[in-house]
Amino acid sequence: MRNRKLISAFVVLAAVATGVAVGQSDRWYPSRWGADDQRGAANRITPAKVLEARDLITRGTVYQLGHVYESGMPLFGTRHFSLRIPQTYGPLGSNRTMYHDEIVSAEIGQVGTQFDGLGHIGVGDLFYNGHDRADFSRPDGLTKLGIENVGALTTRGVLIDVAAFKGVARLEGGYEITRADLTGALARQRTEIHSGDVVIVHTGWGSLWLQDNAKFTASAPGVGLEAAQYLVEREVVLVGADTWSMEVVPNPNPELQFPVHQLLIPRNGIYIFENLLTEELARDRVYEFAFFYAPLRLKGATGSPGNPLAIR
Amino acid sequence: MRNRKLISAFVVLAAVATGVAVGQSDRWYPSRWGADDQRGAANRITPAKVLEARDLITRGTVYQLGHVYESGMPLFGTRHFSLRIPQTYGPLGSNRTMYHDEIVSAEIGQVGTQFDGLGHIGVGDLFYNGHDRADFSRPDGLTKLGIENVGALTTRGVLIDVAAFKGVARLEGGYEITRADLTGALARQRTEIHSGDVVIVHTGWGSLWLQDNAKFTASAPGVGLEAAQYLVEREVVLVGADTWSMEVVPNPNPELQFPVHQLLIPRNGIYIFENLLTEELARDRVYEFAFFYAPLRLKGATGSPGNPLAIR
Amino acid sequence: MRNRKLISAFVVLAAVATGVAVGQSDRWYPSRWGADDQRGAANRITPAKVLEARDLITRGTVYQLGHVYESGMPLFGTRHFSLRIPQTYGPLGSNRTMYHDEIVSAEIGQVGTQFDGLGHIGVGDLFYNGHDRADFSRPDGLTKLGIENVGALTTRGVLIDVAAFKGVARLEGGYEITRADLTGALARQRTEIHSGDVVIVHTGWGSLWLQDNAKFTASAPGVGLEAAQYLVEREVVLVGADTWSMEVVPNPNPELQFPVHQLLIPRNGIYIFENLLTEELARDRVYEFAFFYAPLRLKGATGSPGNPLAIR
Amino acid sequence: MRNRKLISAFVVLAAVATGVAVGQSDRWYPSRWGADDQRGAANRITPAKVLEARDLITRGTVYQLGHVYESGMPLFGTRHFSLRIPQTYGPLGSNRTMYHDEIVSAEIGQVGTQFDGLGHIGVGDLFYNGHDRADFSRPDGLTKLGIENVGALTTRGVLIDVAAFKGVARLEGGYEITRADLTGALARQRTEIHSGDVVIVHTGWGSLWLQDNAKFTASAPGVGLEAAQYLVEREVVLVGADTWSMEVVPNPNPELQFPVHQLLIPRNGIYIFENLLTEELARDRVYEFAFFYAPLRLKGATGSPGNPLAIR
Repeated sequence: MRNRKLISAFVVLAAVATGVAVGQSDRWYPSRWGADDQRGAANRITPAKVLEARDLITRGTVYQLGHVYESGMPLFGTRHFSLRIPQTYGPLGSNRTMYHDEIVSAEIGQVGTQFDGLGHIGVGDLFYNGHDRADFSRPDGLTKLGIENVGALTTRGVLIDVAAFKGVARLEGGYEITRADLTGALARQRTEIHSGDVVIVHTGWGSLWLQDNAKFTASAPGVGLEAAQYLVEREVVLVGADTWSMEVVPNPNPELQFPVHQLLIPRNGIYIFENLLTEELARDRVYEFAFFYAPLRLKGATGSPGNPLAIR
Repeated sequence: MRNRKLISAFVVLAAVATGVAVGQSDRWYPSRWGADDQRGAANRITPAKVLEARDLITRGTVYQLGHVYESGMPLFGTRHFSLRIPQTYGPLGSNRTMYHDEIVSAEIGQVGTQFDGLGHIGVGDLFYNGHDRADFSRPDGLTKLGIENVGALTTRGVLIDVAAFKGVARLEGGYEITRADLTGALARQRTEIHSGDVVIVHTGWGSLWLQDNAKFTASAPGVGLEAAQYLVEREVVLVGADTWSMEVVPNPNPELQFPVHQLLIPRNGIYIFENLLTEELARDRVYEFAFFYAPLRLKGATGSPGNPLAIR
Repeated sequence: MRNRKLISAFVVLAAVATGVAVGQSDRWYPSRWGADDQRGAANRITPAKVLEARDLITRGTVYQLGHVYESGMPLFGTRHFSLRIPQTYGPLGSNRTMYHDEIVSAEIGQVGTQFDGLGHIGVGDLFYNGHDRADFSRPDGLTKLGIENVGALTTRGVLIDVAAFKGVARLEGGYEITRADLTGALARQRTEIHSGDVVIVHTGWGSLWLQDNAKFTASAPGVGLEAAQYLVEREVVLVGADTWSMEVVPNPNPELQFPVHQLLIPRNGIYIFENLLTEELARDRVYEFAFFYAPLRLKGATGSPGNPLAIR
Repeated sequence: MRNRKLISAFVVLAAVATGVAVGQSDRWYPSRWGADDQRGAANRITPAKVLEARDLITRGTVYQLGHVYESGMPLFGTRHFSLRIPQTYGPLGSNRTMYHDEIVSAEIGQVGTQFDGLGHIGVGDLFYNGHDRADFSRPDGLTKLGIENVGALTTRGVLIDVAAFKGVARLEGGYEITRADLTGALARQRTEIHSGDVVIVHTGWGSLWLQDNAKFTASAPGVGLEAAQYLVEREVVLVGADTWSMEVVPNPNPELQFPVHQLLIPRNGIYIFENLLTEELARDRVYEFAFFYAPLRLKGATGSPGNPLAIR
């Protein structure tokens, strides 16, 4: 039904024309973890990484990196988040048990603090490991690359405070974080990135959350293609930020839309975590920490909400 | 509007009549953490407990304790869980970004693997810290006792394998786990419970999940009032199990409905985690572990879904 | 549990103090259709009224009075409306059937064009026929006064073009339509109201729909208490308008909130239809018509969406 | 991206091979109402048809043809219907207004009594008027063939009581209603079908609704391809029935899945109404009536719920 050769040719042409392909062939599959892999860079998390994370816990201080999910939080496009408390149930029994639950309707993996899985982003019709969306995207859930395959992300985490490196409280919307910004900020912090780490970028943009939602969503400072390629080379597991997009929006190349998402997710199996709370880590200069997160195992989902933890 | 004296009198009478009050006054508020507290037993998690948990990590082995959320999983009453993948968005830009998200509608804090917060359960109209539901239960979310107040639960975890203690793969539906069962199983395992621990009970009932949903939800083996009182005295933070109710259902006293929920949540600020995956912990005889979980910060919610981690 | 005498006394006092009770006792129950009635003024629709409506059909021209439900339409408070098309299902069989459906999450009876049932509005805790909300308001649906009891509203309809009577295209927000406005507009149109009619008021406010949502929802011209009492005396079945509230908002008496809703729905069993499309009827000077509408029979719901028809 | 010639060739082959094409070319587009039409057979409803319907109203008796939407009703596949009443809002103002609304999440146009629009069904990727789903099927709603284009269906209605013709209260599941059944039943009733009519088939299958949901959804008696072709030739607007599928399921040709849906909707622009309440019409032998229905104008939706009216 689909002419795969034509698609491939088109993708290559597009990549060449737009400069997407930063130092790599445009055929990104099969993945380095095999043609059947559905976990991508989560495979980098070994028991040794867990122990490396453990050793960073010296004070017992826990940081919650997830925002509160609430009516009025900034949302992308026409996404929604609705929570309602139904009438109270009960009383039940002579002990008069009463109970509440809640009804939530939302693009639950893609609102608020959100973790992007491998089924979220494609290059044209092709996703991680070259899967064509026609082959796995089903109304009841993705039949491949669903978030339930990711497993636990328990590893060393690194905060890169680019705002501090640039000497501002908040980077400007549309500011492209470069490779030099990352390496400069890391040098300033005296932090290294190790293979299998989670990397979180502090831009200060999160201070607009619920304060100026219109500005928050209109653009964002963020990681550019060159900086993302640097993180790919460092073999990270996940790139997070305190913005809705993690990557710079709009891209400096006006023809490109979310190219960093493509570079990380389908091409390299690296996850993205958006709308993280990074304020307290930056304030306390916690640049290394044990990171704990496991996506909700929503069968066939593209992402997950979350409240990841950074522990020192 | 409400006659509180009458309510209080009624509750006391009911408690006396039914024997709910196992060794405590029926006035459970203000809480031991003060009249304004909204975190309950989560206050027991100190930096020292985090470090105690850390020290249990010796192998770097991670267990996911959360079930997959999926259509067809057992649900309580008329609750629902719906996940759909909308038509693919895009292509965007010359780089042809395509993306998926997911629409979820559910009693999200009270389906599948679920964490019960302090706003979930009342004794008549009174909840934790004596809050009357008329004062905090609002359509847009609970204005007190919402799940966003809980914070991270990062502490020592203990698995009590009652099934193994009783010499069966699966306890019978309606079997009441007694104080002697808990202490006997702990002795068999050579495990102690410390103040501030998370306790998870393995009953084997979880093996019915998706195998025989009707049987799974019709009843459950579980913790009885006496055993729960023992856990209260041990000053635990959370009691979890591999059943939908954690407590025994039906209760041996046919007049009582979910009395263990009342004893733990409103009366003692102790959380409940239901439908946990305990099979692998039991199989590997992992009776002590570092437990990591933080509820989704759903503003004003009564509970949270989750994928808690047990690490050795 | 509730002290009903105290409640009743309070309601009477409130009514006397605020002047809500315009010419009627404050005990509005039992209803004129009996203490068990759940249909209110829908009981006024007899076969004779259906035939009266039929006789108004002379040209075969049909007007749809329902707005399009869409993302971006004005919404009250934090209500939401979400519609998504899931991935296409199929192909099925050798004939390759493909199909789409849609996922909708919304306060479905109370967004966009919306019909207010008898369970929607109370005076304190008391609703139509004196039902206390504690007795019928349940999480799974109202056990009394649900929208499924209303039945078909097929009767004579009257449009009152108050904007034209006042010589404007659009009444101002907050303008209170008086009894004199209604009688004056009716005289100008040479239209009478009959017992059992549906009455729809054209204010011109609907022209703001999707054009200036912020202004549309910030206030509204509408029926005041005196005018509403006039309609009660005319024994209408339903009062509709091209505004989100039908009644004037804010009420000229700043202490009152939605008092016309109370006068019509609980006190008199008269329905309200909001956000109707009246532009074409006004343009064509269709002041009398056959009206056809039946609420969706959503069990236990408080309202219904709709696309009512006016036929000449 | 798509090779349309290949698709067309495949569809023709499939049609020839399976006998779908009953007396018509397999190229069904452009439609007889033009290549830009989005209303299909609704175009047959002229003012003259409205007047024809009016003239059938002689007694003022109104029948509701819509089921109650409720938890526990039979649902197709993994579709859901959830309705909850949130906590009561209020009291507002000195007049103490309290109000309820409802949260509904559902495949709202495709659960319970449901009206299938032109965007619901395709032959492979091609829908009514030859639209390729890649061109109009978007996550936020169909950009063509959305239900908001249909408009009011106010016309003559005909009930065909096939169960009575066959001398049974309920046809068997899987029974194919033939052309001879339709013409025989019409002759028995002395009813004719006119161009522009709505036709509703009574099979008796609806008596299983909520009585034996498993049996109700496992199969259905219904219109077969030959009978459907007869209705196409009669130039009807809509075919309804008291079953979930209207057409016979399973089809006698085991290779075909919902071929009658394809014949009516994409190929001929004729609508389908499922799960209608026909019991009372059959009981009262109301074989001709005025039919009133207008889909909810859900922008970009594939169908609509409803409570259509039959009036005599």
